[in-house]
Amino acid sequence: MPRLDFWYEFASTYSYLTIHRVETLAQAAGVELRWRPFLLGPIFTAQGWMNSPFNIFPAKGRYMWRDLERNCAARGHPFTRPAGFPQNSVKAARLALAVGDAARPDFSREVFLAEFARGQVISDESVLAGILRDLDLPADLLEQAQSDPIRERLREETETARKLGLFGAPSFVTEDGELFWGDDRLEQALDWARRP
Amino acid sequence: MPRLDFWYEFASTYSYLTIHRVETLAQAAGVELRWRPFLLGPIFTAQGWMNSPFNIFPAKGRYMWRDLERNCAARGHPFTRPAGFPQNSVKAARLALAVGDAARPDFSREVFLAEFARGQVISDESVLAGILRDLDLPADLLEQAQSDPIRERLREETETARKLGLFGAPSFVTEDGELFWGDDRLEQALDWARRP
Repeated sequence: MPRLDFWYEFASTYSYLTIHRVETLAQAAGVELRWRPFLLGPIFTAQGWMNSPFNIFPAKGRYMWRDLERNCAARGHPFTRPAGFPQNSVKAARLALAVGDAARPDFSREVFLAEFARGQVISDESVLAGILRDLDLPADLLEQAQSDPIRERLREETETARKLGLFGAPSFVTEDGELFWGDDRLEQALDWARRP
Repeated sequence: MPRLDFWYEFASTYSYLTIHRVETLAQAAGVELRWRPFLLGPIFTAQGWMNSPFNIFPAKGRYMWRDLERNCAARGHPFTRPAGFPQNSVKAARLALAVGDAARPDFSREVFLAEFARGQVISDESVLAGILRDLDLPADLLEQAQSDPIRERLREETETARKLGLFGAPSFVTEDGELFWGDDRLEQALDWARRP
């Protein structure tokens, strides 16, 4: 079965669009999906951005919120603009690694829903603890997520993302290293993944 | 008949994707299209970019060329990467205004084809003169395009674009001021334009 890596960042607004449809489309295409959380912050910093480009460039930021609102409405997704943007996504990303491969998709979807459907703060441990509880996952994962091996793994994943050429989220990378950026490119990425 | 403004920049790679399909889709949607060339340079400069973001941010640039190549191949458009990027598009944009409303779509398509299908330099007057000749347009338009009223008009159009919130090309703006950015948003822009 061909495989596609789905790289996402919990602070990323367009990743929120993707989480609603990525599993269904991958399944329909017969493509195995790997959910790979990473951090955009270090990648932005390396190219000289100390903040999200949506904050650095106001016209781009205004457009992004409007575009997101329009697309959430058209697709029937709930949307609440969080008070702060971008949110600090480090704890959520570490926890997404700590919960393991099987629970990662559900956990990740719940984090995005907390953030962009309900406007919650995902760096708040009580929000993350609530998600673990709702999914019947052990509460002590919160502590494990702060362990050195998990911290190191997130650093490595982010470095892998950078080496693959990623500069935004969501991104999709096929087994032969072809990179697709943005929710709009999901279909092309799946088509590429299953090329003979 | 509802109207949609199609804002494009001759140096813009993604505008090249759009010129192949914008007329057909607008016609099918029953939407009147206004071709509005403008310059991104002054808008980029105003937000602190002295070059194209595709040159300032190498990962983004590498991706853009690959994405463009893939999409041209998938849609059957010829593609030759021009030697320099971004090209100086001022003369071509002024000339697109000088040729008048009726000739503007054909003239603009030919400029994009020269640049991205054949890799020609669109600031070269012999290239522009060749396009005028091929379209049976008067050669002295080249001179008229350098007149003060045309220069001033391009400045005004660019300022209008900035005020509308444009920060990239192609962009589409409906009569009620709704902005859509990118070739990927053309369908949404047309849908919005003909909302009751």
